[in-house]
Amino acid sequence: SGLFCDKSTSGHVAVHATHTLSFQAAKLAFLMPENNIFVGEFHILDIGLSRQYEDEEAAVHEIIDTAIIKAIIKTRNKFSHKGNFGHAALIAGSYGMMGAVILAAKGCMQAGTGKLTCYIPSCGYDIMQVSVPEAMCKVAGDKFIEGIGNIAGYDATGIGPGIGLQYGSAALLNEIFLSENKHFVLDADALNVLAADKKLLGEIPGGTVITPHIKEFERMFGASSNDFDRLQLAIEMAARLNIYIILKGHYTAIITPPGKVYFNNTGNAGMAKAGMGDILTGMVTGLMTQQYPLPEAAMLGVYLHGLAGDIACTKYSQQAMQASDLINCIGDAWKLLTQ
Amino acid sequence: SGLFCDKSTSGHVAVHATHTLSFQAAKLAFLMPENNIFVGEFHILDIGLSRQYEDEEAAVHEIIDTAIIKAIIKTRNKFSHKGNFGHAALIAGSYGMMGAVILAAKGCMQAGTGKLTCYIPSCGYDIMQVSVPEAMCKVAGDKFIEGIGNIAGYDATGIGPGIGLQYGSAALLNEIFLSENKHFVLDADALNVLAADKKLLGEIPGGTVITPHIKEFERMFGASSNDFDRLQLAIEMAARLNIYIILKGHYTAIITPPGKVYFNNTGNAGMAKAGMGDILTGMVTGLMTQQYPLPEAAMLGVYLHGLAGDIACTKYSQQAMQASDLINCIGDAWKLLTQ
Amino acid sequence: SGLFCDKSTSGHVAVHATHTLSFQAAKLAFLMPENNIFVGEFHILDIGLSRQYEDEEAAVHEIIDTAIIKAIIKTRNKFSHKGNFGHAALIAGSYGMMGAVILAAKGCMQAGTGKLTCYIPSCGYDIMQVSVPEAMCKVAGDKFIEGIGNIAGYDATGIGPGIGLQYGSAALLNEIFLSENKHFVLDADALNVLAADKKLLGEIPGGTVITPHIKEFERMFGASSNDFDRLQLAIEMAARLNIYIILKGHYTAIITPPGKVYFNNTGNAGMAKAGMGDILTGMVTGLMTQQYPLPEAAMLGVYLHGLAGDIACTKYSQQAMQASDLINCIGDAWKLLTQ
Amino acid sequence: SGLFCDKSTSGHVAVHATHTLSFQAAKLAFLMPENNIFVGEFHILDIGLSRQYEDEEAAVHEIIDTAIIKAIIKTRNKFSHKGNFGHAALIAGSYGMMGAVILAAKGCMQAGTGKLTCYIPSCGYDIMQVSVPEAMCKVAGDKFIEGIGNIAGYDATGIGPGIGLQYGSAALLNEIFLSENKHFVLDADALNVLAADKKLLGEIPGGTVITPHIKEFERMFGASSNDFDRLQLAIEMAARLNIYIILKGHYTAIITPPGKVYFNNTGNAGMAKAGMGDILTGMVTGLMTQQYPLPEAAMLGVYLHGLAGDIACTKYSQQAMQASDLINCIGDAWKLLTQ
Repeated sequence: SGLFCDKSTSGHVAVHATHTLSFQAAKLAFLMPENNIFVGEFHILDIGLSRQYEDEEAAVHEIIDTAIIKAIIKTRNKFSHKGNFGHAALIAGSYGMMGAVILAAKGCMQAGTGKLTCYIPSCGYDIMQVSVPEAMCKVAGDKFIEGIGNIAGYDATGIGPGIGLQYGSAALLNEIFLSENKHFVLDADALNVLAADKKLLGEIPGGTVITPHIKEFERMFGASSNDFDRLQLAIEMAARLNIYIILKGHYTAIITPPGKVYFNNTGNAGMAKAGMGDILTGMVTGLMTQQYPLPEAAMLGVYLHGLAGDIACTKYSQQAMQASDLINCIGDAWKLLTQ
Repeated sequence: SGLFCDKSTSGHVAVHATHTLSFQAAKLAFLMPENNIFVGEFHILDIGLSRQYEDEEAAVHEIIDTAIIKAIIKTRNKFSHKGNFGHAALIAGSYGMMGAVILAAKGCMQAGTGKLTCYIPSCGYDIMQVSVPEAMCKVAGDKFIEGIGNIAGYDATGIGPGIGLQYGSAALLNEIFLSENKHFVLDADALNVLAADKKLLGEIPGGTVITPHIKEFERMFGASSNDFDRLQLAIEMAARLNIYIILKGHYTAIITPPGKVYFNNTGNAGMAKAGMGDILTGMVTGLMTQQYPLPEAAMLGVYLHGLAGDIACTKYSQQAMQASDLINCIGDAWKLLTQ
Repeated sequence: SGLFCDKSTSGHVAVHATHTLSFQAAKLAFLMPENNIFVGEFHILDIGLSRQYEDEEAAVHEIIDTAIIKAIIKTRNKFSHKGNFGHAALIAGSYGMMGAVILAAKGCMQAGTGKLTCYIPSCGYDIMQVSVPEAMCKVAGDKFIEGIGNIAGYDATGIGPGIGLQYGSAALLNEIFLSENKHFVLDADALNVLAADKKLLGEIPGGTVITPHIKEFERMFGASSNDFDRLQLAIEMAARLNIYIILKGHYTAIITPPGKVYFNNTGNAGMAKAGMGDILTGMVTGLMTQQYPLPEAAMLGVYLHGLAGDIACTKYSQQAMQASDLINCIGDAWKLLTQ
Repeated sequence: SGLFCDKSTSGHVAVHATHTLSFQAAKLAFLMPENNIFVGEFHILDIGLSRQYEDEEAAVHEIIDTAIIKAIIKTRNKFSHKGNFGHAALIAGSYGMMGAVILAAKGCMQAGTGKLTCYIPSCGYDIMQVSVPEAMCKVAGDKFIEGIGNIAGYDATGIGPGIGLQYGSAALLNEIFLSENKHFVLDADALNVLAADKKLLGEIPGGTVITPHIKEFERMFGASSNDFDRLQLAIEMAARLNIYIILKGHYTAIITPPGKVYFNNTGNAGMAKAGMGDILTGMVTGLMTQQYPLPEAAMLGVYLHGLAGDIACTKYSQQAMQASDLINCIGDAWKLLTQ
């Protein structure tokens, strides 16, 4: 089709296709937003290449498929109790943005978490207790979260949905980074706070997951001239900071510290709406809470989230489906993968 | 049947029919409430008139059909993100009328909008955050909206559901009209405010959509002796003020500044209930937010709203169907039009 | 079977049957709770009695059947708007009993009402706006309703669910009785207030509907030695006060001022739960709001309410079905009667 | 398989099986968590033992099956009213833990209870009235329940979900134990309070039901070296305190004062999540309110709760199913048992 496989074709001539055929494996180029007008829908043809070749390819870039995900999912032991599925914490919300906490909390619980405590400002108290009766709430601050104190004892902690950018958010993050808890998922305004405080950015605890969309990524790490360069930058940053980066987009990429990139291919344009990212933050936090290791927790979270979105699209349409609708389809997504 | 085609038959003798047959195209008279007892159900017979004749007819009055609507609908690009679907604003609500904001906000989001911020009085804060977690809220005023300040940055803005008629509403509208935002949908009490302040009425920004029912229309522009005269008056006012008028009724009419009239034929008498208009305001605002041009955004909004109402009627009955039920059918309506 | 047809068999010997057969029409005795152990399930055999005989019987006691109800239901004109379906008022609620207003309001709206305004104490404001976005609220009093002022302008008004028995309730009722509004439905604590203030009881406006269960009836009008005597007392009271009495029970009886008694046979023991009566109050109010005359509004309300309960029983079981579930089945009940 | 039938195999050699066959009846060992890795799924083979032998076995340990449960369930009389199904009380909730009351209240009502009053701190008032409109609320205390006064008049009372461990909880329990009410279900923090105040523990009214999970049980009565010893300790404590113990786990055991043990086999690992126990407390309280005797109320409650969980698992998946989802399946569970 005239596309370069692994670098930008920007400025070069390429065919605008509605369907693109490829041999054996999807080329990296197909997964890049900038090539959408060239690629259209792509289809993989099996031409009998050796498994070894594929495995080497897969060593760097891999598309997450159902088989990979099914192998990740753990069975729930019939004698287990809620303690076996961990205790998650969410630190989220501010005045006017409490919906983000509702969505993240439901995402977290529906990932299978045993217990969840939400740290919220008091302006979100009634809202959360009505909307998510399964979650406990601890209040810190009035319109914004502040002074949460020592929050030791959680198996994983999601931070950021709806916290806002007010004075004090950086101090909050710093406080959390220094706490005993060590399994973090950072999203939304937590990332914007880090973008504005590069020293704090350097202090993200190792093994943390961050879930930026492209704009948030650019605020944190600078702009790139094209999708390929941005991916390369993400690989470098994941290694330097020893973090997992979930770079959100149509083919969300999960980048590990040693430089492996997993592309997700569930999800659809109906998910380009407010609140969808909050759910993902909750789901990945919830899976980490259940002792799913990384990058598996990230892969499973991203895949389930997109699959639930695909089911919601079928039920409610791309246009009308809301973040709340996606949540209602998480159960169906689990069932598709476990039955 | 003895009806005049394009003027009132009031005072003249005509047959009371339960079924009316017509050649080739629906006559304007069939769409007028005052002729309901004469027309009953009408049916169109194709008698092979030239397409040219029809096209000329259509130049003035046109019934919106599924084909027209399907041609309007835009596909959501698979690499799109929420920024591609715009940021809407709703300015709505007052003490005791916050339900109007819930309904408008859900209508707006289910039109496919990327993000939504609701400007509400503080008495509606908990209500909105619990009911529409996908929407952000900004609070201005206590029991009524006041002092929203500069609200620049929104792709379209819906104003009016539940704002009330208290002192200050006119100032609020004036403030909004002078802001940088330029795509407005005005409804409900916003129209009643304009009706009471004819100077302000003259300052509606060009390209604004207003959505009066007949009483609101008459308050704004004066009474008419019959449906035909009112339609004519609406055509004149749309031209003079350079606005789009959605004149709500069983065959809701969309009147454009150059005088074209589109009649909608979705919807049913189950929609003659509180809150239905609030949803429409939200939907049209949401479509404009996604860069649907006018009058297409108005046509699609009105058609979808009525279609969702028809589906709700089938599911919940004409009598019992509520505005909330219609919202739950917007997804089904989109699916009928896109699958 | 040994039962007397139209008086109590208490103290007499009768067969305990699981099935009872009867000729041509159900005997009054079958509908009385006290005879349940004798009658079991009853079955009507057609033995060819003249229609005239039946009609005379029906002149006093009649079982409401589907045909009667279908004849009562009015079609919604396709050019109608919400104004055509009236504006209802509910005066209900107190601290800790706001659920009663939610249920009554939903019942009222799902009866097909155009608009609804709820008069509530301020402690119910958020609760109502979140739960019933279609209804407007006006606040009068803090923990109890007081000082609602002149509420003229409503087509019908339901009073009583959850208002409590505090000091001031009698004054409230007195105030309402003297207002311009003249179509009232009185229920629950409104009846208990009347029971405690016999002078006020004498001032119920003519044409009012009251909806007591047996205990409330006895508080108002005194105890009866058996079901037959109580029915006779109700007939006398309906005549003396010129009111319609909906005497709630398994075979709810509607008693008119001239002494006609209609027995309802929809409904089931799953409805013997909190909140069911509140819904009925709302439904009857809503039907009167739409200009259904009496006793038709009462008959249709009671029948629909029981039918929705029967559908809810099938969907949710007798044990688990809640008042909220019944509300969700009102649409199905309307559909059974109109399609 | 090498397991001891009625004592711990800990430290001994046994086969690790995925399927275990047994003759005639399930051995006690199969129901113990510690043997899960040995037993896997077990299957009962009928080898024609005399009924007498089985009955003797059953005299001590019995697995609750559908036939037992169907025999327990009472029919709702068609002339019954809500008074016939009793008035329950729940004393539950504190700041940040109000979800527990929502879940317990819904569980209580869906057990078929006639009326329910919830005693809650004022911080839960809006939350409860929005979430459970069928329940009435009485407020005692601000962030924690205190000073509920005399609560005589309830048919059964559930105490504990979400009450917290603050200063005053012991006094609250003491106050309740001394009240006129005599049918109690104690759960969650009520048990933790008793665990910390052994004198109060000795004053539990006879006939009370307690519903500890294993950790709560150990806090109350001390640790056991294995599952068999713990069961033996529970039998001793039930006898000494004259209480019914619902010892929660995969095979929840109901232990009666005379030492009979009923094992439940409905339920699944999807129920190992926050809020599930709160529902059970509500359900058992609701059944006792309807005059189900003990241990039948406990057996039916536990069985229904697990069955609803099994249905929820099928609908929503083990991972995603929430306590709220289980509640939505209680109706289906009742239908399976009564139709």
